[in-house]
Amino acid sequence: MSRPAPVKPPTQIVVLGGGFAGLHLVRGLEKRLHRNEASVTLIDRQNYHLFTPLLYQVSTGELPPHAVAYPLRDATAPAGFHFLQSEVTAVDIERRRVGTADGELPYDNLVIALGSVTNDYGIPGVRENALAVKWLADAERLKRHVLDIFESAATETDIARRRESLTFIIVGAGPVGVELASSLRDLMDHTLRKIYPSIDFHADVAVHLIDSGDRVLPAMDPRLSAIAMRRLEQQRIRVLLNTLVSEIGPGVVQTKDGAQLRARTIVWSGGVKVNPLVPSIDLPKAKDGRIVVDDRFRADGRDDVLALGDAAYFEHNGKGLPQLAQVAVLEAPAAARNLAALVRGEPTEPFVYRRKGDLVALGRTQAGAEFAKLGGLVISGLPAWTVWRVNYLMQLLGVRNRGTLLVEWVLSFFAGRLVANTP
Amino acid sequence: MSRPAPVKPPTQIVVLGGGFAGLHLVRGLEKRLHRNEASVTLIDRQNYHLFTPLLYQVSTGELPPHAVAYPLRDATAPAGFHFLQSEVTAVDIERRRVGTADGELPYDNLVIALGSVTNDYGIPGVRENALAVKWLADAERLKRHVLDIFESAATETDIARRRESLTFIIVGAGPVGVELASSLRDLMDHTLRKIYPSIDFHADVAVHLIDSGDRVLPAMDPRLSAIAMRRLEQQRIRVLLNTLVSEIGPGVVQTKDGAQLRARTIVWSGGVKVNPLVPSIDLPKAKDGRIVVDDRFRADGRDDVLALGDAAYFEHNGKGLPQLAQVAVLEAPAAARNLAALVRGEPTEPFVYRRKGDLVALGRTQAGAEFAKLGGLVISGLPAWTVWRVNYLMQLLGVRNRGTLLVEWVLSFFAGRLVANTP
Repeated sequence: MSRPAPVKPPTQIVVLGGGFAGLHLVRGLEKRLHRNEASVTLIDRQNYHLFTPLLYQVSTGELPPHAVAYPLRDATAPAGFHFLQSEVTAVDIERRRVGTADGELPYDNLVIALGSVTNDYGIPGVRENALAVKWLADAERLKRHVLDIFESAATETDIARRRESLTFIIVGAGPVGVELASSLRDLMDHTLRKIYPSIDFHADVAVHLIDSGDRVLPAMDPRLSAIAMRRLEQQRIRVLLNTLVSEIGPGVVQTKDGAQLRARTIVWSGGVKVNPLVPSIDLPKAKDGRIVVDDRFRADGRDDVLALGDAAYFEHNGKGLPQLAQVAVLEAPAAARNLAALVRGEPTEPFVYRRKGDLVALGRTQAGAEFAKLGGLVISGLPAWTVWRVNYLMQLLGVRNRGTLLVEWVLSFFAGRLVANTP
Repeated sequence: MSRPAPVKPPTQIVVLGGGFAGLHLVRGLEKRLHRNEASVTLIDRQNYHLFTPLLYQVSTGELPPHAVAYPLRDATAPAGFHFLQSEVTAVDIERRRVGTADGELPYDNLVIALGSVTNDYGIPGVRENALAVKWLADAERLKRHVLDIFESAATETDIARRRESLTFIIVGAGPVGVELASSLRDLMDHTLRKIYPSIDFHADVAVHLIDSGDRVLPAMDPRLSAIAMRRLEQQRIRVLLNTLVSEIGPGVVQTKDGAQLRARTIVWSGGVKVNPLVPSIDLPKAKDGRIVVDDRFRADGRDDVLALGDAAYFEHNGKGLPQLAQVAVLEAPAAARNLAALVRGEPTEPFVYRRKGDLVALGRTQAGAEFAKLGGLVISGLPAWTVWRVNYLMQLLGVRNRGTLLVEWVLSFFAGRLVANTP
């Protein structure tokens, strides 16, 4: 009779962050690891994954908040993984421990997927005087603000004051800024116009989109920029390019060339920077603060620390991959495969990035799409809009969320946006 | 050539409150008044009508908030009526003026439909230490609280503390208390159980329902009380009858007979009292503070002031009609008919109250229904559940809301409740 083999304790895997990178990595681990091989704990300060590409639609009443919030326990519990809702406060690479608001966790393998936060590039007044569109609370705040403004403008008899209160400035003409501006105008033209008969939606309302670059969507194919530009003009959105913002005061955007733009609503969609916890982690960083990883997502060449998503600097053609959901979603399965291999002592494989293309929504039945794998084919109009909708409907996780998304899109399209100013 | 008849200025009608009474009255006026006959202004502090009978389902994640919030401008704008989102601060019956946070409004005809607020019956600590279920903000607060509690209980290793944190006390076994208790248990048994594997839902969780009366649903047919009682027992809800609460402290309910019941969550569904603005209005009141009206809804016999809904005392068989949505919905069309007649100088008609019956939901596929017009027929189980669902689906106003309601009910039934703890 042979002695039973000594039972190896399961490897402790801790994943920091339930954004696109962390969530899709956990889903990858579920497919690749047996329950007795590893104990997986996902930590996030929220109990849900936020589907950020559709967040702007919450601001403009096209979707209710719960459509874009996927419960993280739905991804962990069926797999036998653990979930901890807590704020990560420290990462000790040497002692292999993660500090949280609810105590310390030891790990054997760590995955840093802490994501990014809004970047104000040090411009004074952004945090105090502009609304952000990064988290669900931001989107709900913006929506309530817009509805409040129309409610008070409806009874404002002074034309000058009414027009100032109905001026909206969006700073940053990346995908979030462009999609938000376009959707905001749709909210006005197709829903608010019907219920605010005392407001002249042509003369009284103004939407401005400001960017420091020489075209909208500066990170995308120039043909998409041209499609977006035409559509924004159609929608009577004033686009101010080559315009650098020097300061944002209460109700006023100050530009570098001395102009002052007044608006009751100022939205900041200027970009993102790495999660503020990352600088404190003892790992090599790139110039922009992201954790430098090798082609297997290892930080500092360590097998026990992987980083991916917005918090990681994965070099590709001499630059870091962009901080986009698309990149995180492509990285996560490869990182999960490597992590499972590391747990088993098997060899890891390099990740090869293959860009898929870009999509931008441009309001009712309009969009732009570029397909990298079809030789850079660019389409617009209803076909692109259909691709956009189908793409996000399929990417959204969970039957519950998908059902809500589909129905609310249909209802918002045909029966009008959500304008009850609920708490 | 005859001189043109002098143009009579339109009658100024001001309606206070967009609850069931005010909203359905406005809808009645739309059908009965020509645009040049009267100028109608509806005032509410929210821009939406809250469908209170389904509010408890927001607390228990069966419905998202926007399902039960109907934009009031959807009822006023198409009719050419005005809407003012403001708090009513004063009513001057003599000078025919309404004071609001946004200034004074004169009226020719006033409709007081100011509704009710939570009644704590002077019991100390209710406001500070118990959660209410009257407004949308209450329901969302309760839902977030329940989700937070399960999240922290999931990592609580001390069994005694875990059990105390998972004890829920609902005070008041009227329809709101009964439906909430039953739905809360369904949330646990069908959704939370699957995502909190570390919690023992039989041993660790306790739901208590307390009432001072000798049966649940004391205002309904005793056969409905019996149906509800059986179902609550099936759902392992402990019902404490003949139990008077003397005080509510932080996490503790003190009863008149000296018992102390500890619970992390205490919900107050004890009943309602008239809107606190009503006492300041110079009109005769009933003992419970409601405005006494005659059988044409006239207050103090005045043609220029009608009152209805929870704020009005309409005598029927020697008692005031109950403060229920059902009563307000029956009163409103009759009041609208009389108001249109008053505007035209035509005779008004008395309102005859005909009770329809009662409905109570008792969780998944269970309910009780009593039909007053079918000789008091009482049914239960799946047939009553179907009646309950169809009834509320039809009563809800607006295609947008109805679409959401139907789909979210189906999704919550088959794919689980909404458990993303969104802000």
